[in-house]
Amino acid sequence: MAEATLEKEIFPEWLSFDPLVVRRVVTAPAPSLDDNTADLDRLRRALRQLGYDPLRLPPGELGAYANRFRQGNFTATAVLSFTGEGWELTELFSGVSDQPLLGVAADLGTTQIAFYLVDLTTGTLLDRLSVPNPQIPYGEDILTRIVFASRPDNLILMQNLLRSTFNETLTSLVEKHGYRLAHIYALTVAGNTTMTHFFLGLDPSRLCKEPYIPVANTFPVLHGADLRLGMHPRGLLVVFPNVGSYFGGDLIAGILATGMHRTEEVSLLVDVGTNAEVVLGNKDWLVACAGAAGPALEGGVVERGMMAQPGAIDRVRIDRDTLELTYHVLHEEKPKGICGSGLIDLVAEMFMAGILTIQGKINTKLQTPRIVQTEHGPAYVVAWAGETADGRDLMVSEIDIGILLKSKAAMYTILNIITKKVGLTVHDIRHFFVAGTFGSHIDPLMAVRIGMLPDLPLETYQGLGNTAGRGAAMTLLDRSLLSDMDAVRQRITYVELNVNLELMNEFRGATFLPHTDPKLFPSVTIHPRAMG
Amino acid sequence: MAEATLEKEIFPEWLSFDPLVVRRVVTAPAPSLDDNTADLDRLRRALRQLGYDPLRLPPGELGAYANRFRQGNFTATAVLSFTGEGWELTELFSGVSDQPLLGVAADLGTTQIAFYLVDLTTGTLLDRLSVPNPQIPYGEDILTRIVFASRPDNLILMQNLLRSTFNETLTSLVEKHGYRLAHIYALTVAGNTTMTHFFLGLDPSRLCKEPYIPVANTFPVLHGADLRLGMHPRGLLVVFPNVGSYFGGDLIAGILATGMHRTEEVSLLVDVGTNAEVVLGNKDWLVACAGAAGPALEGGVVERGMMAQPGAIDRVRIDRDTLELTYHVLHEEKPKGICGSGLIDLVAEMFMAGILTIQGKINTKLQTPRIVQTEHGPAYVVAWAGETADGRDLMVSEIDIGILLKSKAAMYTILNIITKKVGLTVHDIRHFFVAGTFGSHIDPLMAVRIGMLPDLPLETYQGLGNTAGRGAAMTLLDRSLLSDMDAVRQRITYVELNVNLELMNEFRGATFLPHTDPKLFPSVTIHPRAMG
Repeated sequence: MAEATLEKEIFPEWLSFDPLVVRRVVTAPAPSLDDNTADLDRLRRALRQLGYDPLRLPPGELGAYANRFRQGNFTATAVLSFTGEGWELTELFSGVSDQPLLGVAADLGTTQIAFYLVDLTTGTLLDRLSVPNPQIPYGEDILTRIVFASRPDNLILMQNLLRSTFNETLTSLVEKHGYRLAHIYALTVAGNTTMTHFFLGLDPSRLCKEPYIPVANTFPVLHGADLRLGMHPRGLLVVFPNVGSYFGGDLIAGILATGMHRTEEVSLLVDVGTNAEVVLGNKDWLVACAGAAGPALEGGVVERGMMAQPGAIDRVRIDRDTLELTYHVLHEEKPKGICGSGLIDLVAEMFMAGILTIQGKINTKLQTPRIVQTEHGPAYVVAWAGETADGRDLMVSEIDIGILLKSKAAMYTILNIITKKVGLTVHDIRHFFVAGTFGSHIDPLMAVRIGMLPDLPLETYQGLGNTAGRGAAMTLLDRSLLSDMDAVRQRITYVELNVNLELMNEFRGATFLPHTDPKLFPSVTIHPRAMG
Repeated sequence: MAEATLEKEIFPEWLSFDPLVVRRVVTAPAPSLDDNTADLDRLRRALRQLGYDPLRLPPGELGAYANRFRQGNFTATAVLSFTGEGWELTELFSGVSDQPLLGVAADLGTTQIAFYLVDLTTGTLLDRLSVPNPQIPYGEDILTRIVFASRPDNLILMQNLLRSTFNETLTSLVEKHGYRLAHIYALTVAGNTTMTHFFLGLDPSRLCKEPYIPVANTFPVLHGADLRLGMHPRGLLVVFPNVGSYFGGDLIAGILATGMHRTEEVSLLVDVGTNAEVVLGNKDWLVACAGAAGPALEGGVVERGMMAQPGAIDRVRIDRDTLELTYHVLHEEKPKGICGSGLIDLVAEMFMAGILTIQGKINTKLQTPRIVQTEHGPAYVVAWAGETADGRDLMVSEIDIGILLKSKAAMYTILNIITKKVGLTVHDIRHFFVAGTFGSHIDPLMAVRIGMLPDLPLETYQGLGNTAGRGAAMTLLDRSLLSDMDAVRQRITYVELNVNLELMNEFRGATFLPHTDPKLFPSVTIHPRAMG
């Protein structure tokens, strides 16, 4: 599931190119005794004729704008920003000007902050940059940071850390391309609810205490100066709204990135992180839930697991006759470990070759040197000591596989339950979007074979990479997403997945390969050796 | 024509009490797992249920407002301001609060600035205060000030002068009543076009050069902080729009004060200053014009003329048989001079008694010691030397009377021409409003007798005092006037009164007492002695 190309990433076909901020040359006839409209009213009239109505002028710039309009002989270049309710005249240059117009989208994550620099006049993605969240020294996880911020002055510190990182990164981004901070006329920020609170200086302390009440879920349209951000002071700052404590603006942005909220057909979006967050729906309804499914899928828990970074085995194939194995390593290095997609490939291929049984057990009766016995039980050698970076055999044990199977079962169960909740089955899903690095790397064919993803036509699956960043960047380029953002927020229903009997029964069946009910996976042919 | 009482002045019957800024107690149910709406969204929801929608929150106060709402156990007192497009949450207090809510209206005149302090919770006019315009040392007249302001930095100086005077006056006004500046949540300012430019720091230099183009005629809704005014920084600052260089926000406010823009019947508003400014119309149309008619009417040109101040003779009666005269002096002092209304009374009474001919000549054949000959021709003694403040006879000469007659003729001509322009006659006017001090003092019966005002039923006439200040104060109390303001501005047609043949012919007939065509003044019985 290859990630889309840069341009396509922030500009899918269904988007229209109507940026949040536009640059327009505006001309008015010179005043005369017959047309003695005031300078600014003349400007406003000309802009209204161009469709910018209602239009707000910045109180502090009335005199300056009138002067510039006159200096340009009643021709000026206007920078106009859409606030959702109407237009603001953000800047005015004398005469015809090709002043740069930049926008930045930010995915404000707990660990990383991803920035996208966009040329608002062309829609071109100029650059992208990811930096660590500067709050990490004050807590790896969100809860620690919330507790830290509850002490006096620490909330301001946490906000200042974000502000500094934003300002430094924005500076380096624009300078690298020969621009200035004042050329940034729009910043869209999608973060989880806690990060959004920190960014705005709002107290997050009640986010983690029952009844889990945010200070705010929706925000007025802000401007650069409101948060002292390194951008045009009157430039737009759009902060994605949250649905609640556990469902933030990053997910809203993710939904926008898929376009699922605009289609008749039912789509599903899954974002695999610490939790698997799932959104199901179409243009009429949206349901969401979250469940623990993640760590093993991101390569975090398995003994030799690792993130999808250089040195990670990300692709595996096993010859069903010789039982010999070939693999691919990210950046073609010596293998250091195996990432989520590699692990899924491995388990799928072992299962297809009958090395793994439907119960997830290694078939130790098979004649191959790759099946070994360790003090923790049987294991399978993916790469021999002579091939690896650390000179040790790279093995995956039956225990590791068990962990993966629990994760994939959790994922399948969540998908199954949420579709059932709305009276559908997984087979009604027409578009299946997988977000995150994970989504960019996994092979849906393999994920179906292990019964992690439902047995849908493979073209149903689409990896979208950073959906939050993508949705935030798309909003820069298509202002109609501003209202989509609020509509999605209001339309979404959050479903609590309680650990109940139904869930447990579903889960048990889903821990098998591919499932205790093979009718659910008609495309998966089970090797006779796997029948256990 | 007595001025209306204070309360009635700013609150006529047709107004509804819907102030620009309101104070509302807002309560929301406490959060729970079943209703985990965020604090600010909870506040916004409760305010929306009260009808405050759309509602903007101040970007810098999100955290503080959420805290105060919580501290008040989800009860707060909101201060809400209407901007014309929607509502702003201007301030929020924890729990139930009776924080004062004040508004100030200002009539920003070239000579005087009149302030009205209003309690926005009750509609009570708490105080009024008039101070000299601090720019007078830089030019008595507007033109001198515009020239002065065209030199570097002087525009800022002129703006700062106004700001300082506003801030000092606002401070003394609120402190006198035990309030603070932050209690002022709304300021409405009605000034002529030049004064409005100075107030906003806009360059007025082109107002007096063809083609007479203001920098701006309409202004965004501003806030106290925008101009660093002594009031709540987020309090509303409404600056009345101008129609053009010669027709400012003060006249728009004046029109609002009459309510003529809302009635079916045709009304006329005349404001006598250096120029006579006249507005004619009803709810469907409005025409305006201005002409030189004023000085004599305000007592400014006539030799012993004076403003309507203590010591001015403001009322005169002459016994038609004895030709003896009685008068009234403002503040019951010894007479120092005669003001506009006194002069009109005098001329009307002299005419009624046949002392003046229809040509405005003093009937020197009459036997009365009050008719005297001076080196400048005949004169009439209003007060003998023994009665006056300066021990000199207070006389009005035939020349003085001629000046008054020219003024009254100009006035009548303007009224006549403007009504003709729209296909009406002066007799179609159902409400005749006279603004200014002049309007408060003149006796319409007398003004009709000299042919200055048309011969309409006396109840048609109404003196309104400071209509600009009144309209500005009314806007504080009835927010629907915000849209009236723009509607009036757009509806109004300015008619240029060129010195043409028609005007000259009209004017000549109108210099007679009451007019060369007595059929126009059927109520005026001409004394046989006056036939000349």
